[in-house]
Amino acid sequence: MTKPPSLDDYRVPYFSDKRAAKFSLDALDPSAKPFSTGTKEGDRDRLSVVSERIDVQQERLHAQRYERVLLVLQGMDTSGKDGTIRGVFHEVDPLGLRIVPFRAPNAIEAAHDFLWRVHRQVPAAGELTIFNRSHYEDVLVPRVMGQIDATEWERRYRQIREFEAMLTETGTTIIKCLLHISKDEQKGRIQARIDDPTKHWKFDLSDLEARKSWGAYQAAYRDALAATSTEYAPWYVIPANSKSHRNVMVAELLLRVLEGLKLEFPPAKEELKGVQVD
Amino acid sequence: MTKPPSLDDYRVPYFSDKRAAKFSLDALDPSAKPFSTGTKEGDRDRLSVVSERIDVQQERLHAQRYERVLLVLQGMDTSGKDGTIRGVFHEVDPLGLRIVPFRAPNAIEAAHDFLWRVHRQVPAAGELTIFNRSHYEDVLVPRVMGQIDATEWERRYRQIREFEAMLTETGTTIIKCLLHISKDEQKGRIQARIDDPTKHWKFDLSDLEARKSWGAYQAAYRDALAATSTEYAPWYVIPANSKSHRNVMVAELLLRVLEGLKLEFPPAKEELKGVQVD
Repeated sequence: MTKPPSLDDYRVPYFSDKRAAKFSLDALDPSAKPFSTGTKEGDRDRLSVVSERIDVQQERLHAQRYERVLLVLQGMDTSGKDGTIRGVFHEVDPLGLRIVPFRAPNAIEAAHDFLWRVHRQVPAAGELTIFNRSHYEDVLVPRVMGQIDATEWERRYRQIREFEAMLTETGTTIIKCLLHISKDEQKGRIQARIDDPTKHWKFDLSDLEARKSWGAYQAAYRDALAATSTEYAPWYVIPANSKSHRNVMVAELLLRVLEGLKLEFPPAKEELKGVQVD
Repeated sequence: MTKPPSLDDYRVPYFSDKRAAKFSLDALDPSAKPFSTGTKEGDRDRLSVVSERIDVQQERLHAQRYERVLLVLQGMDTSGKDGTIRGVFHEVDPLGLRIVPFRAPNAIEAAHDFLWRVHRQVPAAGELTIFNRSHYEDVLVPRVMGQIDATEWERRYRQIREFEAMLTETGTTIIKCLLHISKDEQKGRIQARIDDPTKHWKFDLSDLEARKSWGAYQAAYRDALAATSTEYAPWYVIPANSKSHRNVMVAELLLRVLEGLKLEFPPAKEELKGVQVD
């Protein structure tokens, strides 16, 4: 009998663990589908079931107004960040959900430290917040562009660890996912966007520049993940060449975290007991 | 043959129209179901169809990143603001959606003019934003509580008209809905919340105070709607005793507005034509 897949097998070793030094993205197959049911239809059904259970948890989160949950999504262009949000949260009540996209910093944002704009957007009590890109862009893009050196990116890794430690110590649960696709898969997806004029809004010619630096980005991701996967804010690598697998796996991961919080509705209010409305 | 119902029949006469003076909420039956299919199941199916069409429009809105759409939801406690958001937007991509709840102003908010916190939350280009309560609370609550006089609330009506005019002149489309329930319907809904301990988080004993001022609130709503329904930011009264009717009607209204914007995907980018990805 094969051992069933475990989400923990896809967790990046913690920074404090010796194995972090040996962590390699290349060793993880982007085409793997460990959490797939085997068919697209099966995955869709499974996603629907998990999504409804997330919805149940999220209502309690919202009712309780105590826990805060942050899901960070990172990945190369076309890795499916938007698609994951749509797929996983399509059936979740929009009331307690907040999606925050981070683009290239504007002038005011760039005039502050790199965590400033991120801190303003962290979840409040009762919120499930999704970062579509995040503060991790600031240890990836400037590194690949040659704007910061190793001393600076190491310093930022530490700053990120300390920032995330503070967030978790003050009540936030953090889950971080790298949507892991292959260079070849990206090729097909970018070509499809180029060939469909209604998809041009998702793409700029300049995005091809990042693709030219594929190897440098993978190296930057590897280092960033190994340096910032912690017990309190772990990174998971999501094999994402298959969209239906990607959605199921992110949903299963989020559900496990939410159910782990043991969320309950707040206690009944004594003063409401037996009250008759006029 | 009966004339089919028109959404315009539920639009509050414009402030500039003589009929606004005669506008009465009492004349509108909260139990009416003009946009219902006749059965709950039929309404659910219809909602699903309309919701998918809203989703199509919303993707274009998001892609275009030009138009901004603001939906304002107001109503007495238990009138179904949360339920409308869940029902109408449950199937809409959360990516381009932003829900903003307004509660009693906090210290910083109260230290500013009443439009300050609202202005910070208006939709950006490409956004569909939903206000769950709004600046209208500030011409309802303080009026009923006796904290402001007619001079002040008339002044606020004018300030609201001018604020909303500025928003629409600068590219925002505004739709405002009053979820209209009867006092008796509210009684049943509050009692149900009291009788179900898992619903207590939605309710405080102090909420019964607002119910005691039902008549005063209805009068305040009547005046506020008549004073701020304009061609550029009209108010609609949604008969909301039936939840399934309420959802269908709000969805139909929003869809009409979105389709009226004639949203298209942005034009294809010439520079992407024929590009082959390496």
